Amino acid sequence: MSAGTLRVGLAGLGTVGCGVVRILAERAPLIAARAGRPIEVVAVSARSRSRPRPVDIGVYDWVDDPVALAAHPSVDVLVEAVGGSDGPAKAAACRAIELGRHVVTANKALLAHHGATLAGAAEAAAVALRFEAAVAGGVPIVKALGEGLAANRLTRVYGVLNGTCNYILTDMAKTGRDYSAVLAEAQAKGYAEADPSFDVGGVDAAHKLTLLASLAFGCAVDFDGVSVEGIEQVSLADIRCAEELGYRIKLLGVARRDGAAVERAVRPCLVRADSAIGQLDGVTNAVVCEGDFVGQIVCEGPGAGEGPTASAIVADLVDIARGARAPAFGVPAATLTPAEPAHRPAPFYLRFRLADRPGALAEVARDLGEEGVSIRSMRQHDEADGAADVLIVTHACDRAALDRALARVADSPVSRAAPVALRIEEV
Amino acid sequence: MSAGTLRVGLAGLGTVGCGVVRILAERAPLIAARAGRPIEVVAVSARSRSRPRPVDIGVYDWVDDPVALAAHPSVDVLVEAVGGSDGPAKAAACRAIELGRHVVTANKALLAHHGATLAGAAEAAAVALRFEAAVAGGVPIVKALGEGLAANRLTRVYGVLNGTCNYILTDMAKTGRDYSAVLAEAQAKGYAEADPSFDVGGVDAAHKLTLLASLAFGCAVDFDGVSVEGIEQVSLADIRCAEELGYRIKLLGVARRDGAAVERAVRPCLVRADSAIGQLDGVTNAVVCEGDFVGQIVCEGPGAGEGPTASAIVADLVDIARGARAPAFGVPAATLTPAEPAHRPAPFYLRFRLADRPGALAEVARDLGEEGVSIRSMRQHDEADGAADVLIVTHACDRAALDRALARVADSPVSRAAPVALRIEEV
Repeated sequence: MSAGTLRVGLAGLGTVGCGVVRILAERAPLIAARAGRPIEVVAVSARSRSRPRPVDIGVYDWVDDPVALAAHPSVDVLVEAVGGSDGPAKAAACRAIELGRHVVTANKALLAHHGATLAGAAEAAAVALRFEAAVAGGVPIVKALGEGLAANRLTRVYGVLNGTCNYILTDMAKTGRDYSAVLAEAQAKGYAEADPSFDVGGVDAAHKLTLLASLAFGCAVDFDGVSVEGIEQVSLADIRCAEELGYRIKLLGVARRDGAAVERAVRPCLVRADSAIGQLDGVTNAVVCEGDFVGQIVCEGPGAGEGPTASAIVADLVDIARGARAPAFGVPAATLTPAEPAHRPAPFYLRFRLADRPGALAEVARDLGEEGVSIRSMRQHDEADGAADVLIVTHACDRAALDRALARVADSPVSRAAPVALRIEEV
Repeated sequence: MSAGTLRVGLAGLGTVGCGVVRILAERAPLIAARAGRPIEVVAVSARSRSRPRPVDIGVYDWVDDPVALAAHPSVDVLVEAVGGSDGPAKAAACRAIELGRHVVTANKALLAHHGATLAGAAEAAAVALRFEAAVAGGVPIVKALGEGLAANRLTRVYGVLNGTCNYILTDMAKTGRDYSAVLAEAQAKGYAEADPSFDVGGVDAAHKLTLLASLAFGCAVDFDGVSVEGIEQVSLADIRCAEELGYRIKLLGVARRDGAAVERAVRPCLVRADSAIGQLDGVTNAVVCEGDFVGQIVCEGPGAGEGPTASAIVADLVDIARGARAPAFGVPAATLTPAEPAHRPAPFYLRFRLADRPGALAEVARDLGEEGVSIRSMRQHDEADGAADVLIVTHACDRAALDRALARVADSPVSRAAPVALRIEEV
């Protein structure tokens, strides 16, 4: 291990970038003691040089372009905090690796789309590519999966991976307000972006799940292999009905090994209200790892924000300073193997709005039964205007069969609204 | 990094040792892919060669003595699973380091007493000393503190560190049976040792807390600096009264920075029933880390057992195979600094058994008041035989002042039993 200073080129000076500057400055002696050598920012790059910032960047070399920053002669490691799955972020990371510099990034979109290519290039160049900050903010879950649980054949990794969605769902449940009201408030408070579609649509969580799946199962880094559904359609009525049945609704990312196939999905699910995931409120993230030897490990913490994200980036820098050079996804990039998507049967929560008349329930029961969907419990929930909500919990069933049954019900004369179906995830 | 096989000498073939043999054999290709090279047991040692075991040890070199095993010519790394804070475990670890071999151990007693010496020797010899399995079994909390949160100035680390105690306390609360009945059943089920004193007396948790405190705060590895109290005196009555007030009783290990001093204590505490720690049931362990940048991180999982412990040991071996050489406690052993114990004021739960007569409450209130202990709430709980339980929650107060007040009450004519005082820990 070199005893000299590890020199950082920092591309991107938004919240996260400034957080990195702040930690490295404020905690310099502590970090040098832990890393065995000083870690210092030497050069920076951002879209605007003059924008007001909470840290003084005048002491660092300024470079206009992140790709040029990657090639700055004094830079040992590029911290990429630019964002975006392509464009300058990708170009800068590629250039840094090409020149034999390490790369640390919080950019889940970049990695979900180009992770395998970048990891392979980093191995070929014998440099580190690290991304602890890309998943669950300050929670060291990338390290836990890639190193701490390395002895295990993992069976399932799942969790609440998007704080914005969890905040919205928690707040709907607590205040009884509907989705759009809560989203508007989350935007006002800064918990949701002006354009929230990446968060509420599940894409951000799917980027993270892509990385977790590759770390856990050694499968190819394949964003397109993730089935994605957001929380836009989750209604207050379903949150209330789920509560009545002992469940909470969470946007879950789930990756599960099924032989050679790997199920990868982000979607709103029902989870037991008394489980660790069920109890997770607000913007907190949680990841659960299940392995054959270790059993079940749960890690929770703040999933975003300047402090947690910068904390994770600097932890990666400390590891690099100490000489850590493990492959980015825990195994050589060339061995990451494409995995078929798996479609596992599961129990479902169903809500039907039916005409309040004799034979309506029988119609639903027959439609489900004829498609092989078996009912575990059924209850009538709410009655008004000649219609009633009927809640059904099924035994484990195939989603395709369920969809056929739901289509039958929707087409029947007793149906008063589109049926709702949400998966129940055992946690 | 060498590409050759990492050759393991395994001292101790009890549950944990056999678990290591099993993982390395059953997961060989996976581990080799993750470690970048094969990891193989080459030689073993144990008290009895012929004792029946779930794994075949005939394929490994047999060495009678762990110290001789440490010096076996083919051994790159010693896995010490012998146990005990001194004797053969210590001798074997020292010998291995002296000869330039890495050491991996699950032995919290050894490290709590000799961790700094061993860490210093390992640094001088440029070998790794690793102990992920020593704290919270399969939960990668040593890695989280030493690496994942390395950018943070940590403020507090606490948790449920002993599964046996948590099982007993959880079971008392659930079944309404008293301590001795539940302990006897835990022994029958194998959750508690025949001699349970290390567990129920808090010593095992204190060993672990000693290591966590040094990892978190860089303080000297100082078992004697930990204040230790076990669960033997926790009564069903207090568990029930705590529940009534919205708390659960847990054996907590707490390490908290207070300027240059570090509070280190293991003791039964009241924690909010709705907190992550409050909800932790059975033999599960949990550790909470609080840092200035990262906020609060919670890690939970099985704290003991063959699979989780062996999983942690093998994770350490994978790190060593990959070339990881960070100092054992995250900073150079020579910089670990003795820290004064801190005595932080805290709110307390008090239970008094008082004569059921006018003036009894006034006597208690006066005794507390005169020692500067202020009352947040007070309620009468139970009344029988002319005596009544009075529950008091105090504002934060000094333990010494509280003890003086309790002595006054105990000496007064209204007292019918020794007062109970349990700290309330904010979690």
